[in-house]
Amino acid sequence: MEGERPENTIYVGKKGVMSYVLAVVTQFNNGAPAVVIKARGKLISRAVDVAEIVRNRFVPDVKVANIFIKTEELPSEDGTMSKVSAMEITISK
Amino acid sequence: MEGERPENTIYVGKKGVMSYVLAVVTQFNNGAPAVVIKARGKLISRAVDVAEIVRNRFVPDVKVANIFIKTEELPSEDGTMSKVSAMEITISK
Repeated sequence: MEGERPENTIYVGKKGVMSYVLAVVTQFNNGAPAVVIKARGKLISRAVDVAEIVRNRFVPDVKVANIFIKTEELPSEDGTMSKVSAMEITISK
Repeated sequence: MEGERPENTIYVGKKGVMSYVLAVVTQFNNGAPAVVIKARGKLISRAVDVAEIVRNRFVPDVKVANIFIKTEELPSEDGTMSKVSAMEITISK
C-alpha cells in the first residue's frame, strides 16, 4: 500500500456523516496507511466532522497529517464559472 | 505586534462572508503579522471561504500558515453536552 492512491480518497457529499466515516474506517481496515478526505463548499464542515469522528471514536491511532485549502472554478448551471472553496484533509496512521 | 494576540483572532459567525473578510484585511492593514480565523460546526466552510477570499483577492502576499481541527464540547439548550467540530486557520504575511 503506497499511500494516497485514488482509492484512498473519500469525497464527502450529501449523505449522512456516518457513511463517510464508515468509508474511511474501511480504508484503514483494508491496510491503507493514509486516507484523503475531500470536500467542496458547504460540505467542508462535514469533512471536518468525518475526520474528527474517525480519529476520536473509531481509529484512535490516526492523526491529521495535513490540511490543505484551495479555490476551484466550476461551471455553474448557466454556463459561467463560479469559484468554490475546497479542502483536503489527510489522516494517517 | 507579536502575532496571535486575541485581537488578531476573527470568529466567523452568521454574518455575510465579506464582513469577516473585511475584519481580517483590517487586521493586516493595522500591522498584524498573522490572523487566526476560528469557526465551529457548519460555519467552518465559511471560515475557509474567508481565508481563500483574503488570500486570492485582497492580501496576495499572505499564506496559510496552519490549519488545526478539533472537537469541542458545548452545552446544548437542554443542558446536556454536545460535540461540535471546530477549526482554526492561521494566515500570515
